[in-house]
Amino acid sequence: MRMVDLIEKKRDGFELSTEEIQFIVTGYTAGDIDDYQMSAFLMATYFQNMTDRERADLTMAMAASGDQIDLSAIDGIKVDKHSTGGVGDTTTLVLGPLVAACGVPVAKMSGRGLGHTGGTIDKLEAIEGFHVELSTEDFIKQVNDIKVAVIGQSGNLTPADKKLYALRDVTATVNSIPLIASSIMSKKIAAGADAIVLDVKTGEGAFMKTAEDAEELAHAMVGIGNATGRKTMAIISDMSQPLGFAIGNALEVKEAIETLQGKGPEDLTELCLVLGSQMVVVGGKADSLEEARNMLEEVIANGKALDIFRQFIKAQGGNPAVVDDVSLLPQAKFVKEVPSQKEGYISFMEADEIGTAAMVLGAGRATKESEIDLAVGIVLHKKVGDFVKKGEAIATVYSNTEDIAKCTEMLYNSIEFKDEAVEKIQLISKLITD
Amino acid sequence: MRMVDLIEKKRDGFELSTEEIQFIVTGYTAGDIDDYQMSAFLMATYFQNMTDRERADLTMAMAASGDQIDLSAIDGIKVDKHSTGGVGDTTTLVLGPLVAACGVPVAKMSGRGLGHTGGTIDKLEAIEGFHVELSTEDFIKQVNDIKVAVIGQSGNLTPADKKLYALRDVTATVNSIPLIASSIMSKKIAAGADAIVLDVKTGEGAFMKTAEDAEELAHAMVGIGNATGRKTMAIISDMSQPLGFAIGNALEVKEAIETLQGKGPEDLTELCLVLGSQMVVVGGKADSLEEARNMLEEVIANGKALDIFRQFIKAQGGNPAVVDDVSLLPQAKFVKEVPSQKEGYISFMEADEIGTAAMVLGAGRATKESEIDLAVGIVLHKKVGDFVKKGEAIATVYSNTEDIAKCTEMLYNSIEFKDEAVEKIQLISKLITD
Repeated sequence: MRMVDLIEKKRDGFELSTEEIQFIVTGYTAGDIDDYQMSAFLMATYFQNMTDRERADLTMAMAASGDQIDLSAIDGIKVDKHSTGGVGDTTTLVLGPLVAACGVPVAKMSGRGLGHTGGTIDKLEAIEGFHVELSTEDFIKQVNDIKVAVIGQSGNLTPADKKLYALRDVTATVNSIPLIASSIMSKKIAAGADAIVLDVKTGEGAFMKTAEDAEELAHAMVGIGNATGRKTMAIISDMSQPLGFAIGNALEVKEAIETLQGKGPEDLTELCLVLGSQMVVVGGKADSLEEARNMLEEVIANGKALDIFRQFIKAQGGNPAVVDDVSLLPQAKFVKEVPSQKEGYISFMEADEIGTAAMVLGAGRATKESEIDLAVGIVLHKKVGDFVKKGEAIATVYSNTEDIAKCTEMLYNSIEFKDEAVEKIQLISKLITD
Repeated sequence: MRMVDLIEKKRDGFELSTEEIQFIVTGYTAGDIDDYQMSAFLMATYFQNMTDRERADLTMAMAASGDQIDLSAIDGIKVDKHSTGGVGDTTTLVLGPLVAACGVPVAKMSGRGLGHTGGTIDKLEAIEGFHVELSTEDFIKQVNDIKVAVIGQSGNLTPADKKLYALRDVTATVNSIPLIASSIMSKKIAAGADAIVLDVKTGEGAFMKTAEDAEELAHAMVGIGNATGRKTMAIISDMSQPLGFAIGNALEVKEAIETLQGKGPEDLTELCLVLGSQMVVVGGKADSLEEARNMLEEVIANGKALDIFRQFIKAQGGNPAVVDDVSLLPQAKFVKEVPSQKEGYISFMEADEIGTAAMVLGAGRATKESEIDLAVGIVLHKKVGDFVKKGEAIATVYSNTEDIAKCTEMLYNSIEFKDEAVEKIQLISKLITD
């Protein structure tokens, strides 16, 4: 088999066989296929796409390119959730305890990552004592005991995807549905997921700018999941404005606790109930999304979800008292309200820009070496559709430096107003269940 | 300027500016742009094509990537001819003296090349004493004196094209009209051509398999020529069977001499008259193709073309007596007729396979290191459309080894017969003059 012939085959629109896709992924991971051939193949794929079968084969070849986590010692269907990324997305913190309380095992491998705020692990580390350095045995035992555990990323997962992603980034081949879908799904499968729920974001703050692209990606991933024996569902949700009100690590933990108490922001709560319902269904604990939603609402109302969160914190060395006293979370030195300079209906809040405003306070990492400040961030008081008077607080900034001019300037620049009433944004535009 | 942005721009179908194309070619030649970005760009170009302006810019950027030959000391419009390659193509040997005899200066830089038979230089070296090691001064003086000279390739011509071609070869991006056209045209322009005539081959033995592809390539090159101030014309000619009868170095020199004497094969003669007419017109020595053709027929009939060939051989150290006594050319030890095993009308002669049959005798180079045997080769006696009796000679093999079984087997395999009459192949299907 010669790589140049496989490039030509894809270029000319023919379907590659399972063996051919394995040859490409194995050869590239091992360094037997050069970057310059791979990038030509990626560009040919950008134009010619891949069939459902090719996408599933590519996903499985990438999943098999490195270590694969074995979660078979955990009882039940292990469900993982993935979001394509957004600003102020606190869903993972809420969903873990929430679906665990319904009996669905959540064995989460998580990272720190770059971006506006930290990753799930950074956020959890805002709870005093919390750590993710568990042995595999303890990790598995904890999931079997309380149905939820989070462990740091370890091992050499999907090296093919890492190498491919770095190449795609410099060759204008990132934005290809089969390549994005197989990248995401291969990581979930290598991490041991039996079933997967996907939150595909759309809008200005998201990777997929249009609803059509987001829907295509969601269908691609659900197709891969079902073709590889992992029951998969997805939703399309809006990320043109931040999700919930809080952007910042400790601030998002507080918001997650409030949501588990049934007092969270309306949009975050709704998103958690919808994604959670899919997780409970693919996890085999309910037959319908309606039944699952009733179960989730019940474990919020009766305090069971919050109790699982307490047990989860305690099991991983954290202080569970934080759940009942959020003042135990790291506190910023300076808390300042940001008064609106204009009056009117908010017509647009640029999620990306608001996220960056939180990052300049220190809430997120610009580079891998950056230190995160867990206490700082932004809490919005208004969202798109809300009416704001001049001078009324649109947000509160939590900072450890007194000068927050750069942050507030970015906030002001990210918000647009209109005189006439503006409709609220529909959070979830589509459910994709098969 | 970042290469990744230019890849994306081409990928998305936008037109690149002159500066952007220069940035790519200069950066790639210098090694500042990596192969893996270039191959992604090439594949994007394969799918998105290039506008006429982009093609002209790419051509000029490649021509400027290395040395450029200055032929301004030669009087008149320097015309170069290019063929996209075929089997038994003796036209260059004929056309040099032929158009020189009409006053068009032919200052030819030529190579040895790989393939079924040698390059133009190899063929000329079948004439005892002939050499192409001329100083630039002598080269220019010779063209001014007798209107024709051939010099070996020297200097660092179009390094961008060399580097790009090597990359295209392993990334399935060879077969792209704008890339093929700019590659050919950049070499001609760097070699100092003021005007260019192109012979685009089509058929089984050619690079362009279909008439449509050949025509598209011809139009692309004529477009580039005219956009860069080099008057350019082209023809589409058949290469499904070999051109003329002879395939082999000394054998083709003999055929060229016969053609200059007006006794050459019908197809080779016609091709030389048509290409020669275009050369005389773009060289400014005739106003119409008809006028040019009359001039060419006259210099054949009155012996002037043959006389120029004698002067040309003498000027470059060769023995001009060869023109009047072809037995002075290298002679093969074994001359064997190949009797037909079948009877009927020849319906197909696979040019490529017949070329390879000559190569196995030693007529061409399989690798750069191969030695060429100038004496050996094949002379066909029949072409497509001819009726052949069983046992009648279809070809004569000239060999320096007694065992020619492999060569004859290939010859037999390359020829197909039909019982009913078969039409002769139309040699020239199209003239492209603007």
